[in-house]
Parts: sequence; structure tokens; C-alpha cells
Amino acid sequence: MPDFAEPLARLINEFKHLPGVGQKSAQRLAFHVLRHGREDAERLAQALLDVKDKLTFCRLCNNISDGEMCQFCTDPTRDQRLVCVVEEPHNIVGIETTRQFAGIYHVLHGTLSPLRGIGPDQLKIKNLLDRIGEGKLEEIIIATNPTVEGEATAVYLSKLLKPLGVKVSRIAMGIPVGSDLEFADEVTIWKAMEGRREMQAGPSGLGTQGGRW
Amino acid sequence: MPDFAEPLARLINEFKHLPGVGQKSAQRLAFHVLRHGREDAERLAQALLDVKDKLTFCRLCNNISDGEMCQFCTDPTRDQRLVCVVEEPHNIVGIETTRQFAGIYHVLHGTLSPLRGIGPDQLKIKNLLDRIGEGKLEEIIIATNPTVEGEATAVYLSKLLKPLGVKVSRIAMGIPVGSDLEFADEVTIWKAMEGRREMQAGPSGLGTQGGRW
Repeated sequence: MPDFAEPLARLINEFKHLPGVGQKSAQRLAFHVLRHGREDAERLAQALLDVKDKLTFCRLCNNISDGEMCQFCTDPTRDQRLVCVVEEPHNIVGIETTRQFAGIYHVLHGTLSPLRGIGPDQLKIKNLLDRIGEGKLEEIIIATNPTVEGEATAVYLSKLLKPLGVKVSRIAMGIPVGSDLEFADEVTIWKAMEGRREMQAGPSGLGTQGGRW
Repeated sequence: MPDFAEPLARLINEFKHLPGVGQKSAQRLAFHVLRHGREDAERLAQALLDVKDKLTFCRLCNNISDGEMCQFCTDPTRDQRLVCVVEEPHNIVGIETTRQFAGIYHVLHGTLSPLRGIGPDQLKIKNLLDRIGEGKLEEIIIATNPTVEGEATAVYLSKLLKPLGVKVSRIAMGIPVGSDLEFADEVTIWKAMEGRREMQAGPSGLGTQGGRW
């Protein structure tokens, strides 16, 4: 590796700590910073610190928030009785891009993982139980990932929440839209068969399943 | 695009200004920063500012440096009479990775480009002329890119420097090692034919052309 002047070598090294950034990308990013104005570097540096200093977690749902409650929990246009449970805050991004879900969220900040020593106490479940206890929720959609840990967490939550008198559902597993059965593994095909739904007369349903809900 | 809390949205936006970083990568980077400690964010922020504050350009060759002179111009083990001229500081990285070049560098910080209004006065040539004038240099290797601008710059420099009594050479253009004639454009093939060299008896030369020079 060629020698860089110390501050440049240090910036390259810091960039390499970011996910998906290897030596070459890190060099390209660092030289970009070097070529551009100090104001650009300042804005990025300030944004990095502000994210650590100004963000907190929503008191109700544990989503990232710049106030006591997040933008979903304070939004009167969203259905506050329908809660989608996700593993991490960034999972909300994916669901929001569909523009189809008009409920609110609950972020667990993890999944059950006995191998890594993560049990129910390490997950943020308490404030979800509180909201259910207050009788404010009707349905909980469990949208943890279809992995071993995500599935174990879903089963655990389902057993915990159902006795509290709330409807608990799980997102469907199956063949991704636009994909081919050929590329699906056997467990996914099995889940797709198991989760089959009776076909309706009329439009096929790809993107035409009515409005937001 | 889903709404993010303001500091997070701002960090995503700042990451998107970096080369090769789109919306999805920017989100991934920002969530990474969010998940990790404040010290990590601080170190990156500080490295960004230090690169702008602590680096300057070498008085002799215009390379990036943390002192008045860069690590090449102050290195007694490098041949200070052999200068490789490059467009930008990051070009030095590519040449250094070969570990074969033991001379020093000169960075132009650009190429001639009449279309973008960049003439000889915008390039850093003066201190190269000074060094030649002091009689310290023997050979100048012009390693600007084999593009229209890089080639025009090479021709301009050659005409400027040759009358000063210094040897001026240009890096070879040809078929990249490990590639196939099939993938080379006609100009490259022509340059490869034109630049042909008589074959020597003995090893073929791929990586076995003797030591550093």
C-alpha cells in the first residue's frame, strides 16, 4: 500500500470502517473530500455528529426520532390501532416505500438469538405491551425477517401477545414478485404453497389491491 | 421517499454528495453511523476536517503533503533526477502500487482543456520548469491519461520541456496485460502496433523485467 500523508491515511482508514467501503472506494472518497471545499467536509462532519447528538428513540415505538415521539406516532392521518413490528429502524424505510401501509410501527432493536446471548430482555418489547395494555391496539403485524432469528422472534411475540386479546399476524413468505420459481429455494416454495390464497375473479392483484390500509 | 428525522435526512443527503454513493448506499451508511458509537462518528468527522486543515501541497512537486515537501521529494532512496508527471495526486497511488518506480513525481492538478477554458496557466508547471532550470533533472516521464486532454497536455509539455535539454518520454499505450485484443478499440490496437518492441531471448517480461528503476 502506498504511503499517504497522515491525515489522508487516517481519513481513508475511517472511511474503510463504513459498510461496503473497501480500500479503493475509501481512497476515492478521501480524494473527493480533498478536492472539494472545506464547507463540504464541514457539513458532512457536522451531520455525522448531529445524528449522534440530536436523535433519540421514540418513547412509544423505539423508532429513531428527533423528538420524544416519532413522526408516525404523532401523525393523526395514520391508523394508530395497527402496529407493524420490525427488527430495526431501517426496516421501516422499506415498508414506507410501498406507500401502502398507513399504520404505525414498533421497533424491537434486535431479534432473539440464543447463540449470541440475546433473549427477550434485550429486545424492546415493554412499551408495546404497555400500549396493548391500554387497549389502544387492534392488530399487530409481525414483520421480522424470515430468518431463523426473525422467525423465532415472531413465534415468541405471537405467544406473548395473543393472550392479551389483540390480533397478531405475520407477513407472507413466498416467491418475490417478478422472480421465477426456478430461483426460489425449497423452503420459500413450501412457504408459498402453504400460504396460498384462493384466487378472486377480476384483476390479478399485482399492484391493484385497492388503496392504502 | 420516506421521511427521516431531520438530522438523519441531512446525513443521508451529505453522504449522497460523495462519489458513487446513491440513495440506498447513503441510507445504509447513515444507519451504520446511527448504530455505532459516538466516538466512531467523531473520528470520521475529525479526519474529514484534518484533511482540509492539515494537508497542503509540496512546494517542489504539488503532491499532497503534510509538510512543506512531500514524502517522495524528501526521500533520499528515490532517484531525484527522474520525474513522473501526472494529472492528479491520486494518480500517484496507481503508480506506487506497481512498486517499480523509484523516481519522484510532479502533479499538474489538471489537463489542458480548451472546452473547459483550462489553458497552460491553470496547470502547475512553473515549479517543474524551475527544477529543470536548476539542472537537477535528467528524464521526465509524462504519465497523463491517454485521453484527448491528457494527450494534448503531453504534447504541450513535450514541446515546452525538450528545448530545456531534458529527456522527455511518454508512458506506453497498448493492450492491457491479461486482456484480449478482442476487447481493445482500434486506436488502442494501433498504438500497441506502433509502440511494438523487438522481442528479447529469455523470459517473456510479464513481471520479470528486472528490479526497480
